[in-house]
Amino acid sequence: MVAVQHSKSVVNIEKSGKARILAAARDLFDSHGFHQTSMAELATAAQVSVGQIYRLFKGKEDIIEALVHADADEWCDDMAILRERLHAGLLSIEQTFEQLLLHTIDEKNEALSFDILAESFRNPAVGDTIANMCTRFRTYIRDFACAANPDLSGEALEGAEEVVLACMFGLGHRSLSRPTLSAAAAGALSARMILAALRAID
Amino acid sequence: MVAVQHSKSVVNIEKSGKARILAAARDLFDSHGFHQTSMAELATAAQVSVGQIYRLFKGKEDIIEALVHADADEWCDDMAILRERLHAGLLSIEQTFEQLLLHTIDEKNEALSFDILAESFRNPAVGDTIANMCTRFRTYIRDFACAANPDLSGEALEGAEEVVLACMFGLGHRSLSRPTLSAAAAGALSARMILAALRAID
Repeated sequence: MVAVQHSKSVVNIEKSGKARILAAARDLFDSHGFHQTSMAELATAAQVSVGQIYRLFKGKEDIIEALVHADADEWCDDMAILRERLHAGLLSIEQTFEQLLLHTIDEKNEALSFDILAESFRNPAVGDTIANMCTRFRTYIRDFACAANPDLSGEALEGAEEVVLACMFGLGHRSLSRPTLSAAAAGALSARMILAALRAID
Repeated sequence: MVAVQHSKSVVNIEKSGKARILAAARDLFDSHGFHQTSMAELATAAQVSVGQIYRLFKGKEDIIEALVHADADEWCDDMAILRERLHAGLLSIEQTFEQLLLHTIDEKNEALSFDILAESFRNPAVGDTIANMCTRFRTYIRDFACAANPDLSGEALEGAEEVVLACMFGLGHRSLSRPTLSAAAAGALSARMILAALRAID
């Protein structure tokens, strides 16, 4: 029993260490850059030793992958809730897209996102992680697109998925163009536009 | 006369030095990263001295700004040609969007683009340069949106500009999701979708 408790508590300490490292990495990589942050700085910010980081992660790339996985999981959880509410008749398809786009528009840690995306072209493992995340997103987007237009299939459906992904990505980084339109207005207008776009092809 | 010739030739050497630095910077920043490239490596690749780089540019950020300006100029030149051809009746509005999106889909140096975008959140001067580029793009996009739907104005027009910008940005980075649809098919479908989207609001 003591042994079990000891083992459980080690697991808890590791979990909390991992969570602290990821939270500190998110902050530091975002503010100073992924390549400009040293493992020693990360260890200090996370209140762990450099050795502990290397025991939990193979290196900085491994930490980035964990951050992308965590973000993808959170996104997919939210899209799964939207899909449930859509299929239960609690949301119209326009409201579903509006919620989806509003989630996108609220994107945080943009500098970190761009560091990760740059890395995905230089590091095949990160590229694979991003591609897998997009594949997971597409499953939900395909469902939403077919709810908007049940005739979508083949190339038209693939094109629809790409345009919705592109809008989500682009609107997620709208702050770059310093827009004057509120997030609420941009979300509502974009949802109407996407719905019309999806109904214009088959 | 000799003095004039001498001065002209100095200008030419400087221009060619500047062009070589920018071309080398584009390659090195793209393959190794903006922060991971030293001025010494850049000087070697451009076949100039580090001193010459600092005589022409204040620092690496200044080189990034020059790269963004060059890209923005090239984009605006192409959009100006599209606008002329649209207004001359040589292109339909659907063909105009198709050409615009096909240009986007061909985006090169994506790793470099993402490095620059990350930098725009950490360096206000780079952020301003990106925002100004978007403002220039919006002028053309607004024109194309109003050609698609002359009733667009106010918030609807702003929303339309945002969605077109978002699609351009997102489709420019479609390679991240490893799409199976050809560039031609994606361009044609996206143009049809954007046209329908623009006609659904006013």
